[in-house]
Parts: sequence; structure tokens; C-alpha cells
Amino acid sequence: MAEDQIVDSAPEEGDYELDRDMIRPVLAALDDGDAERLTELLEPLHAADIADLLEQVDDDTRVDLVRLYGREFDGEILTELDEGIREEVIAALHPEVLSDAVRELDTDDVVDLIEDMEEDQQAAILDVLEDVDRVAVEQSLTYPEETAGRLMQREMVVAPEHWNVGEAIDYMRAQDGLPDQFYHVILIDPRLRPTGYVTLGRIMSSPRSVKLAQITEDSFRTIPVLQDEGDVAYAFNQYHLISAPVVDADDRLVGVITIDDAMAILDEEHEEDILRLAGVGEESAISDRVIETTRRRVPWLAVNLVTAILASLVIAQFENVIAGMVALAVLMPIVASMGGNAGTQTLTVAVRALATKDLTSANVWRVVRREVMVGLVNGLVFAVVMGLVGWVWFSAPMLGVVIALAMVVNLVVAGLAGVAVPVLLDKLGIDPALASGAFVTTVTDVVGFFAFLGLAAAVLI
Amino acid sequence: MAEDQIVDSAPEEGDYELDRDMIRPVLAALDDGDAERLTELLEPLHAADIADLLEQVDDDTRVDLVRLYGREFDGEILTELDEGIREEVIAALHPEVLSDAVRELDTDDVVDLIEDMEEDQQAAILDVLEDVDRVAVEQSLTYPEETAGRLMQREMVVAPEHWNVGEAIDYMRAQDGLPDQFYHVILIDPRLRPTGYVTLGRIMSSPRSVKLAQITEDSFRTIPVLQDEGDVAYAFNQYHLISAPVVDADDRLVGVITIDDAMAILDEEHEEDILRLAGVGEESAISDRVIETTRRRVPWLAVNLVTAILASLVIAQFENVIAGMVALAVLMPIVASMGGNAGTQTLTVAVRALATKDLTSANVWRVVRREVMVGLVNGLVFAVVMGLVGWVWFSAPMLGVVIALAMVVNLVVAGLAGVAVPVLLDKLGIDPALASGAFVTTVTDVVGFFAFLGLAAAVLI
Repeated sequence: MAEDQIVDSAPEEGDYELDRDMIRPVLAALDDGDAERLTELLEPLHAADIADLLEQVDDDTRVDLVRLYGREFDGEILTELDEGIREEVIAALHPEVLSDAVRELDTDDVVDLIEDMEEDQQAAILDVLEDVDRVAVEQSLTYPEETAGRLMQREMVVAPEHWNVGEAIDYMRAQDGLPDQFYHVILIDPRLRPTGYVTLGRIMSSPRSVKLAQITEDSFRTIPVLQDEGDVAYAFNQYHLISAPVVDADDRLVGVITIDDAMAILDEEHEEDILRLAGVGEESAISDRVIETTRRRVPWLAVNLVTAILASLVIAQFENVIAGMVALAVLMPIVASMGGNAGTQTLTVAVRALATKDLTSANVWRVVRREVMVGLVNGLVFAVVMGLVGWVWFSAPMLGVVIALAMVVNLVVAGLAGVAVPVLLDKLGIDPALASGAFVTTVTDVVGFFAFLGLAAAVLI
Repeated sequence: MAEDQIVDSAPEEGDYELDRDMIRPVLAALDDGDAERLTELLEPLHAADIADLLEQVDDDTRVDLVRLYGREFDGEILTELDEGIREEVIAALHPEVLSDAVRELDTDDVVDLIEDMEEDQQAAILDVLEDVDRVAVEQSLTYPEETAGRLMQREMVVAPEHWNVGEAIDYMRAQDGLPDQFYHVILIDPRLRPTGYVTLGRIMSSPRSVKLAQITEDSFRTIPVLQDEGDVAYAFNQYHLISAPVVDADDRLVGVITIDDAMAILDEEHEEDILRLAGVGEESAISDRVIETTRRRVPWLAVNLVTAILASLVIAQFENVIAGMVALAVLMPIVASMGGNAGTQTLTVAVRALATKDLTSANVWRVVRREVMVGLVNGLVFAVVMGLVGWVWFSAPMLGVVIALAMVVNLVVAGLAGVAVPVLLDKLGIDPALASGAFVTTVTDVVGFFAFLGLAAAVLI
């Protein structure tokens, strides 16, 4: 296993990292003010890579790059940029270049671009769009943020459910305005309700006389337009969907979501979970500025300070005990630290299992029992180890007994709190990734210090 | 923000959770030994949902369910099961049912199913496959684990680059064995090297006389067959790919990877990162047994024990100082805890930025500078707060000064270690998600206790 991991993460060719060797010539062209050379260097890059490059240079360089790149600046780069930097880049763009860039975008990308903007900025961008696009964007914005309605595209290919393969082919080949990217023909009934879909591949490989309704895919499912985007991504991943029709409250077809958008959402949701678990604002990016970063992190450090002070208040109750035996001060952080770690292990597994819907009312009690058992077994293992360490280090067998008992208590509590806290937060409608850590650590700190010092007070003094 | 999050995670209809109300009738049918009713209940469920259901019931129930379901058991359920449980289910299946189930699967799913099995188990499953499938599976297994070669499918639609739309349509419509799911026609040169691809949608909407080479997609990229699967997933997400041809060392076409497989890998990689960051074995599942779970978690707790003992050794150097002023024992965990939290925040952002290739040699120094600055600002903020708390609580202004200084030192060090440790581990080819936490916490514990107690010794005694 260890070897695999070493090989995995070793830098290698073709691992898509933008390294210094790619960036240096770009910076040289910028220094020379050589717009032609800059365009030549950036031209072959994907918009996503140009966005990464802009994120990785410092603020002044970024503005200079955007200005020198000028007319060639592509709208897609904007959609790929981290939000913090995007505004800055928009501000640096010549208004005409910005208009051109935005007009090139698909309407769902425009929605993504402007949904977090101030109203006057939104209005400025909507103004440059053609009427039909503006209406589409405005319609999308009527759906709540982070719902299927914001994710879907309106361009799709639809056929009456009674058509056969030949009719579908003739219809598609006669059309002028088919979407660039589509994978399914959606069948609808006379009331515009989707009833199934057929892949283009299946249409290609079927005789003209076959009814479309006979070659629909089993994977067909519709997505309610108000469904949370996280659940949309879950459905794509769980059911291996490639695209899915979106329906309104009357089950009528209003749009279609494709897997590439679902994949991007899955990626974002994971990112948010990781950052929330670590107590970092979920939109943190490596390109944020000092002040922005500080602002995002201070609240969580403040919460931690309160929990740490709570733990200190527990210790303060035992000042006399510590004064009588300073070895207790030396050993007490070990109990708290082990509890904190065991609690974090459990809560991370629980938070993930809640997110992937693997921890449900059907198995929650079995999981709680299991985690308490795991805590007990781990507690016994480390009780023996620490009991021996405490005994040998301070030549006090009873100190070994005290730390061993405290270890068992704290690891059992850690297992219990590690499941119970996220499950309760989830029931209360609070994101367990966001708040579990602080609660669980408070519990393990308080219980750790209290069990250890309390037992010491009872047994040793 | 807070409100959004509350709405997000509130349980709601259509959020795909398998709840007790769905599981209860299944268990009732099992109790009655009513195979017909069981089949009726499971029939409409997707294989992924049946797999979830099997994961959520206890071990005995699972075996009984699999046996009663019997002949109806679908091979796809196996591919959706957690690995721990999969073996158990395979063992419970009648050999003939297992053979049927495996024969139904696509070859890439068979590879996924058997790649982690013991050799004799592998052989048993390979034996039941038809010759052509067995050869395909065996060929896939010749590529290293977790590479593009294991992910790709061999079924694809290929056309010479000089064909036009009409030729492609006629060819496809004349074929018998087109793959069920395909989205692109891959163009190849006479040496079998892919040179571009055309979407089926584009073929449908283009006149027959148009050359395929004129309507290829800009997004075209090939994937080296030995590329790490994590990088494959990255490429799909970064470049919005739907499918990508896989090539061997001579750039010849050997297979194709589609976005649904890339999405599953992206999901797995994220999951691994989250679990590794928390010090939990990366294949942990909520369905693991106590002994399995303990085995996975003990190593990380053992590492934590060593770092906690290291920190205690630092405290032990100052036993006399603490004996002289027990308030130090009360306050010292606060400094260490704040450092640990700040360090975890920074390292999480750094580990993610490394994974998404946003932290590179081009910006590493700027990021280090930024994190140290953030540590300094946060340090100053909490130095003031804790200075006041220390002063007021213990009526000792110098104690306030000591804890304030120690806080600044530890948060700056936390910022530095939080970036430096993951970056160095990454350079050494060690997965930073796996090992950063232990190193960073050791640093912040040791520095936290040393700075606080050392300053106290110098100033107060």
C-alpha cells in the first residue's frame, strides 16, 4: 500500500500541472509587452489552464496579463476562474472585450458567472446579451440558487413518444439548430411530460422502423427543477446517468442536465465538505488574499478558543491536584489528544456516510453500537500502552492505572460523540460537516481532562 | 450563509435516501420467506440502491436476503457493493447464480470486480466468462492497478479521418455490434493513431458531404494508457471531457474512457482524501465490522500517541516551572489547541490545492508568505484576546503577556508548517493527505508548549 501511494503522488509527466517552465515564457512575453507572443503562447491552452495560470501569478501581473492579452480574452476563461479573482479580472477587462466574452458563452455559463454578482453588475452584463439569451438567463435566475433549475440547459432534442427511429433521424437531420452537445433524444407525451430517452448510439444502430419507445434506456429518471444541486450530483453518480430531463411540479419537461455539470457540482460539494471539516470557509481558495483568508478562518479559531477555554475551566477545578502532582500536567494532554483524534476519525466517517446516504435511520443504531465498541477496543489497547508508559516514566503504578482508565472512558465517549453529534446536527438540519468538529472536540477535551484529573483526585490524593 | 446551509441539509423528499419505510417491507417479506414478494419489492430498484440496502442491514439478514432473492440477483449489484461486503455476498451466492451474474457484466465491470480478489477466486470467475470476454479482462489486468488501462473500455466506434458524414452514418447504420453507450466517433490515421473525434450530435446535424475532420471537437485529448486514474479524473473535470481515447506508448488507440467512469474515480479520490486527512484508512466504509475498523484506525492513533508523548516530553522539561505556577498547566492546552487548529486549516487548504494542481512551483513562495502573514494576523488577534483572558482570570498581567506572545509564535509556525509540510511530502512523493496532519500537529504541540512554558520560565520565574 505504502509503495502504491508513493508512486501515485510522485510528480510525473502528463499530470497536468502548470509548472514554472510553462509560466516563465508567458511572464517573459509580458515583460517585453509582446502581445503577439503572449497570444501565441496562450492560444493552444485550454481556458481552464489559462484560468489556473491567472490564479497562480500575483495580482499586478494578473492585471497586466489580462490587459496585454486584450481582444483575445475568451469568455470561457471567466467561468473557470476562482470567484475572488474573477471580479478582479472583470474589472481589468476593457468593457468591449467583456461584452464580447460574455456574448460567446452558453446561457448556463452566464448564469454561473453572474449569479453571485451585485445587482448593478448583473444588469450591466445582462445588457450586452442578445434578447433571447437574456430571457433564458433571467428565467434561470428565477429558480433558487443551488437547484437543478440553475444547472440545467434549455437546449435539448425532443421527440413524440410514438415516433420511430426513421422519423427521429429525418427530423434531426432536417434541423438547423441542434445543440452542439447532446446525447439523448427525450421522448415526451402530448402533455410535454418526458416518458423515456434513447441514446443517439442506439438510434444509429437500430432499423428505421423500430419504435423509439422500444429502445429507451433503463437508466431514465427525471430531476425535479427545485432539487438541491448536491442531490442532483448524487443521483448522477449513484445511477450512472449521462443526462437527465428536468421537470417542473406538473412533471413537464423544462430542461436537461448533463453529467459534466453534475461532475463539477460533485467536485465542489466534496471540496466544501473537506474545507468545512477543517474549519475553513468552504469557498476558500489558494488565490485568496491575506485579509480574505483571515476573515474566513477567524470565526472557526474563535469557536476553538471557546472550547479550549472550556477545557481549561475543567483543568482549573483540579489546580490543587496538579499542584500536588505535576506529572498530571505532563500526561493530561495525551488523554485529551487521543480522544480528539479518535473522535475526529469517527465523525469524519459519519459525516461522509451521511453525505453519501449510507448512514440512515435504518442502520444508525448499529453504527452507534459499532463505534462505541471500536472506541472500547481502541481504548483498551491504548490504555495498556499508556498505563505502562505512565507507570515506567513516573514510577507510579497508580498513575498508570488512572491514565489507562481515563483513556478507555475518553475513547468510548469519542466514538459515541463522533456518531451522535453529526447525526443529531443532520436531524436538526445543520450541515454536520460544518459544526461537528467543534462539538466533538469539546466533548473529548472536557471528558478527557475531567476523567483523568478526576480519577487522579479520587485515587492518588 | 447559515440559512442556506440549514436548508441544504434538511431531509427532504426525493433526496434519494433509503429510509426505514423502504426497508421494512423488504424485511417483512424476508421474515415470511416470501421470495415472490421480495422480488416484487426489489425489482423496481436500481442495482445501486439494492447494494445500499444490503450494506445497511446486518450480516445475517444480508445473507438471508441474498439467498432468498436467489436467481433474480443481478451482477450489477455486485459492482455497486462496498468491497468488505462484496466478498461476503459472493460467498452467499449459489455458484450458478454467481456465474450468470458475472456473465451479464461489461468487461470493465468484471475487471473492477475481480482485481482485488485472491488468485484462485479470480480464476474461478474468469472460468465462467466467455472466451472473448475472458481475454479482454485478462488484457486489462495486464495494466497496473489504478491506471487508465484498467478504466478504459475496448468497445468504441472508429472511422478513418478522411471519411465524410454520409460514410460515417452509413457505416454505423450497417453495423450490428455498436456499443450500447457511445458519444463520439473517433477519427484515426492509417497508423491507428487517434487524430480527433466528432460527436454523434454533430454528425446528425451536418450535411452528408461534410468531412468528419472539419467538424471535430476542440476538446479532443488523448489519455496515455499508463496514466494514473486520479489524473484521468482530473483531466475530465478540468477540460470538461465526455469521453477520451486512450493511447499506448506509440500513440495508437487502445480503448476509450467515458465521463461516468471518470466521475466515479473523482468521487473515490475525494473520499480517500477526506478519510486520509482524518487519519482513517482510505477504504473505510460505514459497513465495516468492529475488528476491521479498529485495525484501520489503530495505526493513526498510535502515530498520534507518539506525537502526544513528544509534546509531553516538552512539558516535562518545565515541571518545576509548572509546580511554581499551576495556572500555566491550566492555560497551556489553549496555546497548543489553537496552533493545532490553525495548522489544520492551512494544511487542508494546501493539501486540496496540491490535489487540484493549484499550488505549484510557480506560486509556492507566495502561498507560504501569505500563510505566514495570515498566521501573524490571527496570532495578533488571539494574542490580544488570550492576553486579556489570562490577565483577568489569574490577575497576572505578565501571564497575559506570555500567553499572547506564545500565541503569536505558535500561529505563525502553524501557518508555515501547514504549507511547508504538505509541499515537502509531495516533493518526496508521499501523499500529503496521508501524513501531513501528524507532522503539523506535532510541530504545533511542541512549539506551543515550548513557547508558552519557555517564555513563562524566562519571564515569570
